[in-house]
Amino acid sequence: MTDTVLSSASREVVIGFNRPFVIIGERINPTGRKILAAEMAAGDYSRVEADARAQVEAGAHMLDVNAGIPLVDEPAILARAVQLVQSITDLPLSIDSSIVAALEAGLAVYKGKPLVNSVTGEEERLEAVLPLIRKYGAAVVAISNDETGISENPDVRFAVARKIVERAADHGIPACDVVVDPLVMPIGAINQAGVQVMRLVHRLRTELKVNTTCGASNISFGLPNRNGVNAAFLTMAIGSGMTSAITNPLHVEVMQAVMGADVMMGHDPDCVRWIRRFRDVPPVTATGAVGEGASRGRREGGHRRRPAPAS
Amino acid sequence: MTDTVLSSASREVVIGFNRPFVIIGERINPTGRKILAAEMAAGDYSRVEADARAQVEAGAHMLDVNAGIPLVDEPAILARAVQLVQSITDLPLSIDSSIVAALEAGLAVYKGKPLVNSVTGEEERLEAVLPLIRKYGAAVVAISNDETGISENPDVRFAVARKIVERAADHGIPACDVVVDPLVMPIGAINQAGVQVMRLVHRLRTELKVNTTCGASNISFGLPNRNGVNAAFLTMAIGSGMTSAITNPLHVEVMQAVMGADVMMGHDPDCVRWIRRFRDVPPVTATGAVGEGASRGRREGGHRRRPAPAS
Repeated sequence: MTDTVLSSASREVVIGFNRPFVIIGERINPTGRKILAAEMAAGDYSRVEADARAQVEAGAHMLDVNAGIPLVDEPAILARAVQLVQSITDLPLSIDSSIVAALEAGLAVYKGKPLVNSVTGEEERLEAVLPLIRKYGAAVVAISNDETGISENPDVRFAVARKIVERAADHGIPACDVVVDPLVMPIGAINQAGVQVMRLVHRLRTELKVNTTCGASNISFGLPNRNGVNAAFLTMAIGSGMTSAITNPLHVEVMQAVMGADVMMGHDPDCVRWIRRFRDVPPVTATGAVGEGASRGRREGGHRRRPAPAS
Repeated sequence: MTDTVLSSASREVVIGFNRPFVIIGERINPTGRKILAAEMAAGDYSRVEADARAQVEAGAHMLDVNAGIPLVDEPAILARAVQLVQSITDLPLSIDSSIVAALEAGLAVYKGKPLVNSVTGEEERLEAVLPLIRKYGAAVVAISNDETGISENPDVRFAVARKIVERAADHGIPACDVVVDPLVMPIGAINQAGVQVMRLVHRLRTELKVNTTCGASNISFGLPNRNGVNAAFLTMAIGSGMTSAITNPLHVEVMQAVMGADVMMGHDPDCVRWIRRFRDVPPVTATGAVGEGASRGRREGGHRRRPAPAS
């Protein structure tokens, strides 16, 4: 039972073992988005605002804010973006940068308790980032790689995660404020990537007792129908105990998978959220639906000769 | 490592712990299908044939054949349907009836080793069905309810399954030829139904060492967007070790979920089946896709600052 409490000025979101899965919207990130990068560099945050609103509308629970643009004053831009996003939504934020000064600039202006994305197991990063986490009372994403890179061996990744959690404790940061990213490999290249992550999430949950997150879309890199792979991954990862992900809430297949997984885990009491979302929505259109059966088969009651539960 | 080997005259299908999930097509079943029932009763099997072909085309690995029509000669009709379906596909079949004489009629004409659907833990059923399974060298679906009905307590359902497996052994039927249906409750009524099934599947696999199946669509009874719930259920059930399901292969969302789950489990080497299926197919159309980001966000490479795996 580990709860990671994040907040804005007026709203709290909890990442926790027995709670609905938390989706951290990944869209506010200029990496690979030239227009957004140019606009942010020029002080135009209209697209940041639109991305924030769209992700809130799509059902994100938190938003990641990243201003990683080459050759700009990233600390100033990240701080501005954080302030802007906080002015238009009360969702708690994840302050995302690989530059420590940018993380600090974002933390300095943030209202509430943010998630900081991220620290790794590298010595230099640990000693630069953890004091900031402590100083601002934030929570932090711990990425399980270190100076040697990302190990393909999940036991090594677990050991790195343990080291970060222990070092955080040395800095006075409790394990509940460390959210471990076990690192998701592309399953097209490493066929055991899914099984590895599930085992790792289970160990992180039962042995280190930490919450977990991941960049979910890495799993499908290089494959067709990426959303289908991402949906399968998230569903199974949630089944094995993962508690949050940094992903794109605008992909409705992915959002549906997370909502369905919450139903399966018993984290959507009386299926209220599922019913509210889908009662008036026609089912997702089939990819190349086959024959008449596709609709006719949707009869009520499922397979015959399964008697009703004895109550 | 348990393998349940089924066969037709010329093809073998194996339900097993470290193998792709087996989908048993449920469509050839007159329950709730008035036209099909009337046609079968009148000796017209054209729709049976069409249903068989459509399910084969959609990717089913086995087909369930049921002739449960009130006031007809069910044994004769089931035997005829089995023969017909075997004449048009080499997929192994599941011979499905609640009438023992119909099961025997189907077994008598079947070429190969079928699955028999089903036996329960009821004394009378055990002693009627198990001798047939032994006589014809078939495998059997064991439904974990007994004279007292279906218990809501998964431990009781486990105990019933154990009893069936033990009784089968008494009849000379090995555990690998008993495929247990842990019974899936509607999650709209019993919010813990998903978690229960996953725990039960895990116990059945690790303690009884049997393969498992289920009528997957029961989980979504009464809910909107049933295919979305079914997809979440199957993905998570496969993650917890379920090895087959009786379901509708014409529902592409469900088939996609199963294929994605096989990828996640490492049961689709090099993702060959996934790539072959989806490389030329546009992604499933979104239910009410939100804004421009839905397509724009589908950039390659996933979340930034996740370094490539060290190989």
